[in-house]
Amino acid sequence: MKGGLVSESGAVLLSERRPTPRAEGPDAVVAAISDFISHLAASGDGIPAGVGLAVPGLVSEDSAIYAANLGWSDVPATDFTSLDIPVMLGHDVRTGGLAESILGAGRGLTDFLFLPIGTGIAGASIIRGEPYGGSSGWAGEIGHTPVFPDGEQCACGQLGCLETYASAASVGRRYSERAGVEGVKAEQVVSSDDPIAIEVWDEAVEALSLALATYTLLLDPSVIVLGGGLAEAGPALFDPVRTRLIKRLAFRDAPPLTPAALGVDAGMLGASLLGWRAAGRPELGPGWALDVRSAPLVS
Amino acid sequence: MKGGLVSESGAVLLSERRPTPRAEGPDAVVAAISDFISHLAASGDGIPAGVGLAVPGLVSEDSAIYAANLGWSDVPATDFTSLDIPVMLGHDVRTGGLAESILGAGRGLTDFLFLPIGTGIAGASIIRGEPYGGSSGWAGEIGHTPVFPDGEQCACGQLGCLETYASAASVGRRYSERAGVEGVKAEQVVSSDDPIAIEVWDEAVEALSLALATYTLLLDPSVIVLGGGLAEAGPALFDPVRTRLIKRLAFRDAPPLTPAALGVDAGMLGASLLGWRAAGRPELGPGWALDVRSAPLVS
Repeated sequence: MKGGLVSESGAVLLSERRPTPRAEGPDAVVAAISDFISHLAASGDGIPAGVGLAVPGLVSEDSAIYAANLGWSDVPATDFTSLDIPVMLGHDVRTGGLAESILGAGRGLTDFLFLPIGTGIAGASIIRGEPYGGSSGWAGEIGHTPVFPDGEQCACGQLGCLETYASAASVGRRYSERAGVEGVKAEQVVSSDDPIAIEVWDEAVEALSLALATYTLLLDPSVIVLGGGLAEAGPALFDPVRTRLIKRLAFRDAPPLTPAALGVDAGMLGASLLGWRAAGRPELGPGWALDVRSAPLVS
Repeated sequence: MKGGLVSESGAVLLSERRPTPRAEGPDAVVAAISDFISHLAASGDGIPAGVGLAVPGLVSEDSAIYAANLGWSDVPATDFTSLDIPVMLGHDVRTGGLAESILGAGRGLTDFLFLPIGTGIAGASIIRGEPYGGSSGWAGEIGHTPVFPDGEQCACGQLGCLETYASAASVGRRYSERAGVEGVKAEQVVSSDDPIAIEVWDEAVEALSLALATYTLLLDPSVIVLGGGLAEAGPALFDPVRTRLIKRLAFRDAPPLTPAALGVDAGMLGASLLGWRAAGRPELGPGWALDVRSAPLVS
């Protein structure tokens, strides 16, 4: 897990990374977060005004309702710190989307898609200026939309999910399986001339184009912001996806595809925006001038 | 076109239908609407407080920006009436969705899908209580999402669109083509035991289930409201679509499918809500008690 201390002018005073003690159970993770927050708080100048946390699963502002990976069930926001500071929770992908909307590639835009493509694929729809969680917090599962109705079985149990073709993990896995080798990474597949690599990457690009065409037709985003590890492929990802997306859309323009601006810091910066909201300072953020960084704050 | 006079308590004082003089050109349609409004206004008790209009194409509250079918380009809302009354425009499908959200099947719900299935298919996403038009007014084109990536060519130019399999017009057309007969209607296909009819209907159901699974995963609606002519098929539509939708979703529940409540009156009633908004009375609507009607006001 990553954490940081962000001033009211947006200066990142400190950022650190700690292991998540997942194997020790749900309470141990909550306790580790609480320790981390106390440590960060003690490193600053006085007590922080608020705490923001980006967490996985089903989440409301004041409760981590459910997280299969961590074993959480209805953990109140206040359990995450022993300090007497207001806390606000956000969904991990949507908190990254919030940061991209206020500080990053979506600055000034009210309606767009933030799509990080990493080990898995989930999206944050920014709608009328705010990330959208749906009627019960489960929106954004674009990674499990059925792009190929009779396609391969996904680990989730469904058929033909985007994620099972186009996540970084899937691109590596699918190549390894077909080529009969082990542990090939997505970035090797993307840059390879090997016919199997070209085929696997082509299927990933086709799956992404289909999902983005559907998203565009349903939600008319002004921009699609691609992030996560796979977006580092740059033109090898953006160029073919753009071409196929345009081809899939006959009667409307394709929205521009643009790279995310905040990289691995999106979640931490989004959490800082939630922290300032918790502190009753929701106006902070839009005025922050973030330096363009060549390296992430926490890698 | 349909028009009506709706009181501030929601009583439909009058509703009528007139032909749309499409063949006479864009200005003739605007003039016919203006005449219709004057006629409706003269039939009431004093001048109406406001006018609401549900129109196709690209539309903002104060302008009919673009409508290919009618030849409209940037027609100001005020051109639609010679009376000195405030006018508000809305997109046709989204205005129906507004009516279903305030007066119909979505009453009390803030986040759901209204999907009328008729000659064509377009949806209205109700998001945080209001129909959502996207970044530029083109949201809701679920009928042209590519449910079968290598599927049949749609009239729009794309491949495998939902609409080309599942609209009432397509169900009739696809049966007629395969069976080598002419002019069979969707309702005949739905109720037939003919193997070709069963096949065509099965493909329509599969296409709908795929589109609704994708919508559910992306937007997490609390309910999916099905309307339009094809929804009259009742259990022959709802039962198989519900079963297939549940089957397509492995890790989350399917939202309930429910029939639209307002039928062909949804657009007219939604326009009346816009009219009252134009009049500065946006609070009207939620308190209206609509009689359950067995027949539409205007058929």
